[in-house]
Amino acid sequence: MNIAVAQSGGPTCAINASLVGVFKESLKEPEIDAIFGSVNGIEGLIQNHLIDLKTLIFTNDDMELLRQTPSTVLGSCRYKLPDWHEDESVYQKIVSNLMQRQIGAFFYIGGNDSMDTVQKLSAYFREKDVAVRIIGIPKTIDNDLCVTDHTPGFGSAAKYVATTMQEIVRDSSVYSIPSVTVVEIMGRHAGWLTASSSVLHELGEAAPHLIYVPEAEFSIEKFLNDVRKEMAKHKAVIVAVSEGIEVPEGVQSGVVDNFGHKYLAGIGSYLEETVRREIGCKVRSIQLNVMQRCSSHLCSRTDIDESEAIGAAGVRCALNGETGKVMVFRRLNDMPYTVTIETAEAAKIANREKPLPKSYINTAGNNITPSARKYFMPLIQGELTIQMNHGVPAHFTIQESLLR
Amino acid sequence: MNIAVAQSGGPTCAINASLVGVFKESLKEPEIDAIFGSVNGIEGLIQNHLIDLKTLIFTNDDMELLRQTPSTVLGSCRYKLPDWHEDESVYQKIVSNLMQRQIGAFFYIGGNDSMDTVQKLSAYFREKDVAVRIIGIPKTIDNDLCVTDHTPGFGSAAKYVATTMQEIVRDSSVYSIPSVTVVEIMGRHAGWLTASSSVLHELGEAAPHLIYVPEAEFSIEKFLNDVRKEMAKHKAVIVAVSEGIEVPEGVQSGVVDNFGHKYLAGIGSYLEETVRREIGCKVRSIQLNVMQRCSSHLCSRTDIDESEAIGAAGVRCALNGETGKVMVFRRLNDMPYTVTIETAEAAKIANREKPLPKSYINTAGNNITPSARKYFMPLIQGELTIQMNHGVPAHFTIQESLLR
Repeated sequence: MNIAVAQSGGPTCAINASLVGVFKESLKEPEIDAIFGSVNGIEGLIQNHLIDLKTLIFTNDDMELLRQTPSTVLGSCRYKLPDWHEDESVYQKIVSNLMQRQIGAFFYIGGNDSMDTVQKLSAYFREKDVAVRIIGIPKTIDNDLCVTDHTPGFGSAAKYVATTMQEIVRDSSVYSIPSVTVVEIMGRHAGWLTASSSVLHELGEAAPHLIYVPEAEFSIEKFLNDVRKEMAKHKAVIVAVSEGIEVPEGVQSGVVDNFGHKYLAGIGSYLEETVRREIGCKVRSIQLNVMQRCSSHLCSRTDIDESEAIGAAGVRCALNGETGKVMVFRRLNDMPYTVTIETAEAAKIANREKPLPKSYINTAGNNITPSARKYFMPLIQGELTIQMNHGVPAHFTIQESLLR
Repeated sequence: MNIAVAQSGGPTCAINASLVGVFKESLKEPEIDAIFGSVNGIEGLIQNHLIDLKTLIFTNDDMELLRQTPSTVLGSCRYKLPDWHEDESVYQKIVSNLMQRQIGAFFYIGGNDSMDTVQKLSAYFREKDVAVRIIGIPKTIDNDLCVTDHTPGFGSAAKYVATTMQEIVRDSSVYSIPSVTVVEIMGRHAGWLTASSSVLHELGEAAPHLIYVPEAEFSIEKFLNDVRKEMAKHKAVIVAVSEGIEVPEGVQSGVVDNFGHKYLAGIGSYLEETVRREIGCKVRSIQLNVMQRCSSHLCSRTDIDESEAIGAAGVRCALNGETGKVMVFRRLNDMPYTVTIETAEAAKIANREKPLPKSYINTAGNNITPSARKYFMPLIQGELTIQMNHGVPAHFTIQESLLR
């Protein structure tokens, strides 16, 4: 049989490693012939836009390069399948395109929206007796997927955040005057990535002195009090804040500022302005922006290796006849860190979100407890030896014309 | 004799490497006894706040860690010396503190403002027959110092910009819909760092498709036209822009938007809003912010090695009896890249700025010519083997109480 694989949702450093896992494991399986890449996620299956990956990826060197290339080499999408009872035409197109190429298994690497696709497609295939197995391979820097201990892509993002936060601490501490630096970190609903900056405490850094996540209540008055208290103790106060924290007066990232004008920047800028106005000290805000999800030059080797392994496990799972499943990590131990890869029903993961446990947030709601570090620490360990090309990391890319 | 060294101005990845150069070379010189670090630049000399560095830096390992630690381990300042004819008291304090500790040479690592200090202090010392030699060691990510081929700190910033820009290209290219990404890069008056992103063209990337520097004329109409033209050719258009480009209607970084409201973010946000309003496509702006000057985990080995070497050369220069000089690089060849270290009069560097040569800017004023690449390329070559500590780069720090 042939197989197909696609990538979906927001970029991370590890989605291509999972693709390598699927590809490499499929090469080993005598049952599997062609390995198709669907361009722009499920859109490629709908539009019959598939590429024979064996004509693009040849050597172990290619695969090593792909492992260190961020984002999705096959493109991505944000497409959500309709309910098939309401609109079956899209499903019929997918089935027809899969049949035409004799594809017997489809691997979808993505976040919780993509797991919705895995669930819907596999349910439809069961109903219609379509013999194509569908397996979800998770990924998201947000780490907010249920059932799995953590998500591929999160460890690299967390390593970037910790490393960059430490460099910002050095940068912010040089002048003799007091200052506040607000670092805005991705996470609209869950504070996992922001909370991971607390690993610096394990290394003896006092910073970040304040950490705000969407799971804790936030008020501007309390925030200003917190900052004033920390300023009494530290010359350069560092604040980590999730983009998704709720500001009571309804001001939020990308919406409206307190004058009713469209807000041009995020919550970091808003807090910067608030500190400037209410405290009047030197203050700066920094958005880690897309760098936190695409800085592969600084990826976590643990994350990349695990992301490849979970892709490979997906192939074995499909060959065992399973479908409608999502591959998940189960942690057996923090130290020495050990995980196994298991499967879960896509229905238990799709469209759900896993918040940060309450026990990770301190009672004041302005920092992360030491108990969280044993969870985060193993995920950021190890580095890849990055292959360079004229002083810049080498990337594996597919020529644009093939992706159009 | 004893010597003193201080660090000044905005942080870079290479200021501590120059400190290592001064320290290591001084250790070798039998003439030199104590090596004092002045805390917060020249402020430490005025306030008599000096630290005996031999009580803090012991081993080669310490020095290696210092080389990979960003920012200024001794703190920094933005202090500008008054003209001594107008206010001699500060000069007298400095002389008294230098004499008290039998300091015979002072090394000031900094940008063009710091070279003003080197010039003023050395002129005053000559006038008053104070036998303390003053040597400037340049640094700035802006690369806008006169006389020297390039500045320590620039190569690492350029390597960060090129690497991150390439990762942003991967990140921005995943969806099937057209998009524009505006990347804002530091440089208030000179476009060197923004222009250095053109090294990606040497690696076969079409991006950045548009590059705007302060040295070229800028208009919003032309910008929108440029973007529309590039959108016809590329799905994901990447724009690199210096924070200091002049927007005709007087809108500039941190000032006022075109509705008269205080502008909360930089020029990148402004261009993002303009594209959204006038073109209406998916658009994002990214500020590389302080990461471009403090991401030591990705420093250029060429830059770090040269920064150490220019610090060491400063010591030999002082021992040769010179004063009022700044150490500079003279490039002998692009490929193979060779530089020598020479000296220049501080007066020729202080308070001046070197713009990007006109020949580096294309005639349309919206990109960088291929001729610039042979200049930039050698500066970003090589990497340090970064020592890690629990998954995060190890830093050399001085306990906060000593710096207060």
